[in-house]
Amino acid sequence: MTDLKAKAGATDAGIDVKHMKWWGWGVEGVAFHHEDKPAFAPFVKKVVGVDLHGDAVAVAPSFDDLDIPASRLQAPVLAALSMIVGEGHVVLDDMSRVVHTYGKSIRDLIRIRNGVFPRVPDAVVYPATESEVAKIVATALEHDLVLIPFGGGSNIVGALEPQPHEERTVVSLDMGRLDRVLDIDEDSGLAVIQAGAQGPDMEEQLNAKGWTMGHFPDSFTHSTLGGWVATRSSGMQSDKFGDIADMTRGLRMVRPDGVVVIRAVPSASTGPSLREMIIGSEGRLGIITEVTVQVHRIPEKREILAYLFPSWEAGLKAMQAIAESDATPSVTRVSNEFETEMSFATSKESKGASALVMKGLQRFLKAKGWNLEKMCLSFIGYEGTDEHVDRNEKLVSKIVKKHGGMGVGKGPGVLYDQKKFDTPYLRDFFLDHGGAADVSETAAPWSKLLPLYREVYASANRAFDKIGVKGLVMAHLSHSYHSGACLYFTFAFEHGEAPLEQYDVVKKAIQDAFIVSGGTVSHHHGVGVEHSPWLADDVSVPGLALMQGLLDSADAGANFNPGKITGK
Amino acid sequence: MTDLKAKAGATDAGIDVKHMKWWGWGVEGVAFHHEDKPAFAPFVKKVVGVDLHGDAVAVAPSFDDLDIPASRLQAPVLAALSMIVGEGHVVLDDMSRVVHTYGKSIRDLIRIRNGVFPRVPDAVVYPATESEVAKIVATALEHDLVLIPFGGGSNIVGALEPQPHEERTVVSLDMGRLDRVLDIDEDSGLAVIQAGAQGPDMEEQLNAKGWTMGHFPDSFTHSTLGGWVATRSSGMQSDKFGDIADMTRGLRMVRPDGVVVIRAVPSASTGPSLREMIIGSEGRLGIITEVTVQVHRIPEKREILAYLFPSWEAGLKAMQAIAESDATPSVTRVSNEFETEMSFATSKESKGASALVMKGLQRFLKAKGWNLEKMCLSFIGYEGTDEHVDRNEKLVSKIVKKHGGMGVGKGPGVLYDQKKFDTPYLRDFFLDHGGAADVSETAAPWSKLLPLYREVYASANRAFDKIGVKGLVMAHLSHSYHSGACLYFTFAFEHGEAPLEQYDVVKKAIQDAFIVSGGTVSHHHGVGVEHSPWLADDVSVPGLALMQGLLDSADAGANFNPGKITGK
Repeated sequence: MTDLKAKAGATDAGIDVKHMKWWGWGVEGVAFHHEDKPAFAPFVKKVVGVDLHGDAVAVAPSFDDLDIPASRLQAPVLAALSMIVGEGHVVLDDMSRVVHTYGKSIRDLIRIRNGVFPRVPDAVVYPATESEVAKIVATALEHDLVLIPFGGGSNIVGALEPQPHEERTVVSLDMGRLDRVLDIDEDSGLAVIQAGAQGPDMEEQLNAKGWTMGHFPDSFTHSTLGGWVATRSSGMQSDKFGDIADMTRGLRMVRPDGVVVIRAVPSASTGPSLREMIIGSEGRLGIITEVTVQVHRIPEKREILAYLFPSWEAGLKAMQAIAESDATPSVTRVSNEFETEMSFATSKESKGASALVMKGLQRFLKAKGWNLEKMCLSFIGYEGTDEHVDRNEKLVSKIVKKHGGMGVGKGPGVLYDQKKFDTPYLRDFFLDHGGAADVSETAAPWSKLLPLYREVYASANRAFDKIGVKGLVMAHLSHSYHSGACLYFTFAFEHGEAPLEQYDVVKKAIQDAFIVSGGTVSHHHGVGVEHSPWLADDVSVPGLALMQGLLDSADAGANFNPGKITGK
Repeated sequence: MTDLKAKAGATDAGIDVKHMKWWGWGVEGVAFHHEDKPAFAPFVKKVVGVDLHGDAVAVAPSFDDLDIPASRLQAPVLAALSMIVGEGHVVLDDMSRVVHTYGKSIRDLIRIRNGVFPRVPDAVVYPATESEVAKIVATALEHDLVLIPFGGGSNIVGALEPQPHEERTVVSLDMGRLDRVLDIDEDSGLAVIQAGAQGPDMEEQLNAKGWTMGHFPDSFTHSTLGGWVATRSSGMQSDKFGDIADMTRGLRMVRPDGVVVIRAVPSASTGPSLREMIIGSEGRLGIITEVTVQVHRIPEKREILAYLFPSWEAGLKAMQAIAESDATPSVTRVSNEFETEMSFATSKESKGASALVMKGLQRFLKAKGWNLEKMCLSFIGYEGTDEHVDRNEKLVSKIVKKHGGMGVGKGPGVLYDQKKFDTPYLRDFFLDHGGAADVSETAAPWSKLLPLYREVYASANRAFDKIGVKGLVMAHLSHSYHSGACLYFTFAFEHGEAPLEQYDVVKKAIQDAFIVSGGTVSHHHGVGVEHSPWLADDVSVPGLALMQGLLDSADAGANFNPGKITGK
């Protein structure tokens, strides 16, 4: 394949698109450290038995040790693609192809560290315009290629990987050059933005004109608008601004017969919603190139306050009461006791005055009769005019008190705000030390949340027993709605020789618990291949058949990211 | 067919399902009268030239004069259907079949008055359970029947009528016996309700337990939950409670391969949204039997206040400012000057004190420099705790003043609240007097509303000229959203010998204006056959093809209400 490489851009060095480190989350040189967090190592030792003071049992792998399957791209296809995007924008080198093979789930990280590459894309193509995307789609159909759109690469449900036995040429379509805010309709609060725009770049362009989109998923720093739409993302401030499905008004998606154009109208009664078919389509219906989203003027005031509750049950009840009240906070979040302990354990060492304050608080709460091991930390965010923020803080404060909780001020909220995008780094750090950790999230009606939560613990603990590990599940409520909320679970254990098999047992236990308890298979991570085994349980067999009918009719040749969502 | 009739229930006399009068809106004996509204006849004379003081040029037709095509139902199908629902619930009489042929659009009313029945359903079937619906669906596929679900019969986009050249047996599936509120999850604010429940019955069942759904379309008194979902309905209080698509969490829809069950979760990331495919599907994907909707505790306080604005532009700007503000009213509505004049003209004669107040107000406004002919009436609704209502009224009051408007108290709002469901009676009344009137509604971003509005007037006036009539268009903004609003147009003219051809010209002019101005083909009436000519313009040709693919894959035999939405 050397000839082909010489013809195409051998690497993406000259292409101005940011990618995460090939073997893990985030940018090179940034990682989680615990040396300045004295409570962290003892916490980890206690809950999952992993000794962080020992040597790392694994380190970031060496790329040179990996055996990367060669590109199968054929000369005519390379020529066709190069004609469209220019030779420098068809990239065939191993590193680029590996970066575009997986997302960043624990399954992805373990496979990449172990050089498990049943199939990597044969080329990475960087279109600069919708018209280039349209030509790539035409080429894909002409040559029977498989197209997999790629945004920031943060996916954790396997939506980016080629099917292992794919015989056809696989092209990863990196949308990173389509990264501009094209227009802001200031009268309507609507911004037209290209699908490949990454969170920080996009917010910067909007902020410069006084606007914000207000969509901040955990992956924000490394994910794209197109990716958010394609996976039905939800952000940390979605309580106020809505999930991506609520924010997304207009869309453009390239299909073989042209561009589907969804007008950015506030509401429409035009049959089954095409907008809502494209949202969540994970590349299976076509290539999303442009999205018109609701944007908001940067608020006068923005605050995140911290609260403590004597128990998880009290915290949940308080969030429910807030959702039922006239208060409209931007964030409602409460962690269970394990995640609360983890939060305190990841804080930097308290010294001097702040250590005294912390000890004073603990004494006070003990005197109040709290069991500090059951204490739950909550963050509630407020945005708007000074008056709106003040009023909402007062409304919430009353509700918190009524449920036995107490406010602990802005300090922890500021800290949360600074650290909020750092969590994904823990997956890599933990893996370095022989631990496996990942997440599962669901949504359910208020009435089902607590039974679901208990079932998740029971089911996960049975799974930990089965695989013979000391495991931990932590949880938080991350978003509130009128009729229910999202519960977000993090699970971790010290893995053995077959970490993926162990992971499968635990993951299955948790997803099964969602399904039997009336939750959904996923609240905002999507389906990909990771959640598709539970999709029929969630949407019913006839529902799945209806969805399959849509996918098959839209993609008879299975050229658009086949195998994702429905498994077919 | 006498034998068949003898076997089946000849009429629906014994079936406890309410229907509207066969030839028009609402219940027998209720109609619009203008005798007690002295300003009405002069207004109508002025704006469209129709003389209401003359004799009615038409009267409700006599059923006996009509020539109703006989039922084509064959004995084996009758037997099969009767086995499922019982003989008394398969109805073949002419009156029942006519009631189930059309909705209540002007096209429907004109056709029914003129005995135009290219095709009527061959039978009306009244299932009592989802399991009966499932058996009917199986029978439909076995015998290649056409199934058309029927709720309250209030549709105005032609979604209920059989295709004129349909050769197969057509069955109207009246959902009226599936009318119960099955369950209220008080913890989650979710009610499980059967699809055939009519608005008032449903609210009564909810109210009895302290709940309300808060969905009040114009058709409320004669429409069903299933119909609202199938057509993407929106209600008068949707500003606060959301459109039906927002309220609908869970769904059950019968398909040939079983029941699609959508879990009532607050949000989900499970691929293209099946929920949003079923909402708006107008019977084309299957039969909706049950819906889980968000419900709310009956508010402490509920008020509708009236406001006046010096111009339509000022009224629109004020609604936009309210949508951008911290205020969260339940209703935002402002009528243009023509509809305002019509509103005053349909008021009962003011006498004594109230006449003096009215005159005083007019003098006051003139002194302020208002041109009373440009004045626009607005209604804004508030619901919630006393404190919430008070606060919102204050917030809105400031915005109204800033835009040159003024509050005129509760009186008109109470009147509006009482009369709000009466408007559809006007269509029949006006037809009695030789006038044709109907409605078209759209939604567009704030920035496009005023240009769209002007284009509608220009385009409609060209149409009136073309058909040589004096016509009137009235408008109001009926719902506000973050990024735009719904504009609702009523048009009327004195029709000639070919009212439908004239209507077609005017209707086309208005829908064309929506499309060229960036609006949607319909905000909440649906597509049916009336709006399908504009669907490709709205959702783009590739978008329409994607939708057609879904419909074809879901209904290969075209047994589910064929021809609706996409025209195929």
